Amino acid sequence: MKVLVDIAIEPLGTSSTSISKYIRKVLEILDKKGIKYYPAPSMTTIELDDLTQLGYLLKEINDELEKMGVKRVVTLLKIDDRRDKENSIDHKLEVIKK
Amino acid sequence: MKVLVDIAIEPLGTSSTSISKYIRKVLEILDKKGIKYYPAPSMTTIELDDLTQLGYLLKEINDELEKMGVKRVVTLLKIDDRRDKENSIDHKLEVIKK
Amino acid sequence: MKVLVDIAIEPLGTSSTSISKYIRKVLEILDKKGIKYYPAPSMTTIELDDLTQLGYLLKEINDELEKMGVKRVVTLLKIDDRRDKENSIDHKLEVIKK
Amino acid sequence: MKVLVDIAIEPLGTSSTSISKYIRKVLEILDKKGIKYYPAPSMTTIELDDLTQLGYLLKEINDELEKMGVKRVVTLLKIDDRRDKENSIDHKLEVIKK
Repeated sequence: MKVLVDIAIEPLGTSSTSISKYIRKVLEILDKKGIKYYPAPSMTTIELDDLTQLGYLLKEINDELEKMGVKRVVTLLKIDDRRDKENSIDHKLEVIKK
Repeated sequence: MKVLVDIAIEPLGTSSTSISKYIRKVLEILDKKGIKYYPAPSMTTIELDDLTQLGYLLKEINDELEKMGVKRVVTLLKIDDRRDKENSIDHKLEVIKK
Repeated sequence: MKVLVDIAIEPLGTSSTSISKYIRKVLEILDKKGIKYYPAPSMTTIELDDLTQLGYLLKEINDELEKMGVKRVVTLLKIDDRRDKENSIDHKLEVIKK
Repeated sequence: MKVLVDIAIEPLGTSSTSISKYIRKVLEILDKKGIKYYPAPSMTTIELDDLTQLGYLLKEINDELEKMGVKRVVTLLKIDDRRDKENSIDHKLEVIKK
């Protein structure tokens, strides 16, 4: 069953308060890997087929950010793992609109 | 300056795994108070004019959820308080698309 | 009834990856205001008498951090608002040890 | 380099507002796997040798909670991945006390 994960990255110790270039890099990685996502102003929701993928994805993101000069990243995640019903970005968007 | 706040509520001890009716109640409160928001699958981003409003809003939300029978709510917040530049939902959506 | 709030601050755009001096400032503010807290490696749990206090506390923290040169702060909060039973730091530490 | 991860689980749709038995199960899993942790009132900080382990650990936790009857778990994580300096629970506790 799909697992939904909200991700936000906070790069620390960069000298600029702007972090949008790092967020665009994350979206680029998601695109490349074919992971479905829904970008929101402060978080991005992704759909994973299996929770075991998560650590590899996060490591790849942080490795790429390190190449851009980021020496410390705090990542916030909210994972929604539902075992009784299929979960999806589309379904969640629909039910809150009813 | 505006402060952006991501909110997600997790009502505990309700007997159903579905929480969409509680999320719709939160959106109804935001509508009634005229607070600008951007709903996403798992979080809602709101724009506050002043951070001091936040506690009152959260108390109102939890009081309304209690009237719906919820005895315990865990709320997740990510607050983005930027002092060097105007911050807004629209601006944040724009920069990640570039 | 008491409300428990976990707080973590992530100052963005400072040139150093170390953020401990900002965390010590937060603890200093909590001490000065007589707010009970439990410091952990990455989050601090505080006890509030009333959720409406929260916005004022967060604003004071961010104002102090701004005086230290921080132009953007991302704050993570997890709020536990329980209406059926008294909640406290001591109680929560006890039940997880049983 | 070690990665520090704060974890909090919020089981949804259980009929009780108390979640301590689920938290004790998580600590039991961490003990069994020999993962170093620091329990706090609302979050547990763990030390991982490699971020790629994270997904497997989270899947194991949610599988065990499902066996206890939990059909939906929301998990909150804050990951601190520092590439410039060794990171550890002990180090972080020390620097906030100075």
